[in-house]
Amino acid sequence: MADVLVVGSVALDTVETPFGKVEEALGGSATYFACSASFFTGVRLVGVVGEDFPPGHLAVLRGRGVDLTGLTVAPGRTFRWRGQYGYDLNEARTLATELNVFAEFRPRLAPELRRVPYLFLANIDPELQLDVLRQMEARPRLVALDTMNFWIQGKRAALEAVLAEVDVVTINDSEARQLAREPNLVKAARAIAAMGPRTVVVKRGEYGAVMVSDGAFFIVPAYPLETVHDPTGAGDTFAGGFMGVLAAEDRVDARTMRRAVVYGSVMASFTVEDFSLNRLLRLTRAEIAERYAAFQDLTRVEG
Amino acid sequence: MADVLVVGSVALDTVETPFGKVEEALGGSATYFACSASFFTGVRLVGVVGEDFPPGHLAVLRGRGVDLTGLTVAPGRTFRWRGQYGYDLNEARTLATELNVFAEFRPRLAPELRRVPYLFLANIDPELQLDVLRQMEARPRLVALDTMNFWIQGKRAALEAVLAEVDVVTINDSEARQLAREPNLVKAARAIAAMGPRTVVVKRGEYGAVMVSDGAFFIVPAYPLETVHDPTGAGDTFAGGFMGVLAAEDRVDARTMRRAVVYGSVMASFTVEDFSLNRLLRLTRAEIAERYAAFQDLTRVEG
Repeated sequence: MADVLVVGSVALDTVETPFGKVEEALGGSATYFACSASFFTGVRLVGVVGEDFPPGHLAVLRGRGVDLTGLTVAPGRTFRWRGQYGYDLNEARTLATELNVFAEFRPRLAPELRRVPYLFLANIDPELQLDVLRQMEARPRLVALDTMNFWIQGKRAALEAVLAEVDVVTINDSEARQLAREPNLVKAARAIAAMGPRTVVVKRGEYGAVMVSDGAFFIVPAYPLETVHDPTGAGDTFAGGFMGVLAAEDRVDARTMRRAVVYGSVMASFTVEDFSLNRLLRLTRAEIAERYAAFQDLTRVEG
Repeated sequence: MADVLVVGSVALDTVETPFGKVEEALGGSATYFACSASFFTGVRLVGVVGEDFPPGHLAVLRGRGVDLTGLTVAPGRTFRWRGQYGYDLNEARTLATELNVFAEFRPRLAPELRRVPYLFLANIDPELQLDVLRQMEARPRLVALDTMNFWIQGKRAALEAVLAEVDVVTINDSEARQLAREPNLVKAARAIAAMGPRTVVVKRGEYGAVMVSDGAFFIVPAYPLETVHDPTGAGDTFAGGFMGVLAAEDRVDARTMRRAVVYGSVMASFTVEDFSLNRLLRLTRAEIAERYAAFQDLTRVEG
């Protein structure tokens, strides 16, 4: 059992969907990742918040056992995101982004964090992702990163530089096509793998996820849910379950990678059932095990 | 091993995709279905063509062993469809539909066709679908139907009447939501099942298919293809593989239904690799078996 380190955003989210609304709720990529991974292994978080960050939100993460020694409180206001979803829930409409203290985020890893064997570089500037990787004392056993259209458009060279050094990339469907400049998803995933990562995990929202690892495909559907209230954080929750399982088992063979993709999908399926981290915070190990079995049943073919 | 009867269109398709074009190629829902099902069991086709229908096309279907005694040659021109696909290949743009002899299609089943135990009512007017079902002497062991937005909008009452009497419905993702008037796919599938069919198969194009049968979900992805040249006929090819397997094994239990969905997906994955029926016509049993195994591997999770 090994620990996992995540570097990313901690935010206050205001989100409206056809099913309700939350204001200044706990959010951010590192937050969803850490909360999800914490069900499987020890998690250390590196990020920044402002002086206005509610102490109750810190207590929530500490309650999940997340190590927050790498979370800096900087003068100023916390990163805020305001978004809206329509009935199809597939794409967020960003109404406002206030970077605030996150604009000056320059992660410095304390010595004890530089030897964590599983590293997740959440969706931040690829220059910072590469800088964090350079700070690691030994090459971690597994490095994964997430990215998005903003960096593909604006910082392609930096993104390609960090992609050349990571093991796993998690990326959305449309962003995979954009990064590879290729409309066919199979060719796009292979083209991204050719940029460096052994493993490409394409997130497809309500259609699940596709993993291409050492050239072999693995596909897991999304869990068929009647209740999807807020898709915010689903991708980072997926990554948290995925990395959490790999770190907990301290194995990265093909069989464990597949199980990790299913656990990632299990965790994401819970997150979207409620706003913010609400569903994860009342989740039990028994529910995770039950849904993992349900996922297996969902695709099982005999003979 | 039982036979399957299909009632639907036989057409001449002119199709353009970014990968090429065919003119007046063999097409139609019954054609794709019959050709696909013929790899598994005996197929009898009921349809209509005009006097201009090329004898070579008939020879193609006969070459697959399809019984064409129910195919009428009527005075006039054959049904023609002209369509175009863009790079995403998910939705066809219809450029022209000439119903011709198909406008007057009133299927009359010869006595020997009224006892075929597996019946597929391809995408035609739901009033005709119900009329065909009424002509059957004994209730078939399994009746499936396919439908589309045109009938959902224009003939909802007739469609609901026939849905109440069938066992299986195959339907597109967006049309399932439209038929159920429900954006959530899980709720939509359950709502359609409540209209009558024990089994609802939702076709999701490049995302595969979802089956809800007696309340239980089964999800199969689409095969990850680098080469998709023409998606025309994929849904009917799927239905042909699905019904062909059920009829061949003459079983409709849950395990066989799941295998049938995978075989349907296997057959559809071949069809889209080339225009018209070209790929199916050079397909071998060995290739089908190989891709079935590949499908199983695609979703396999151990432990």
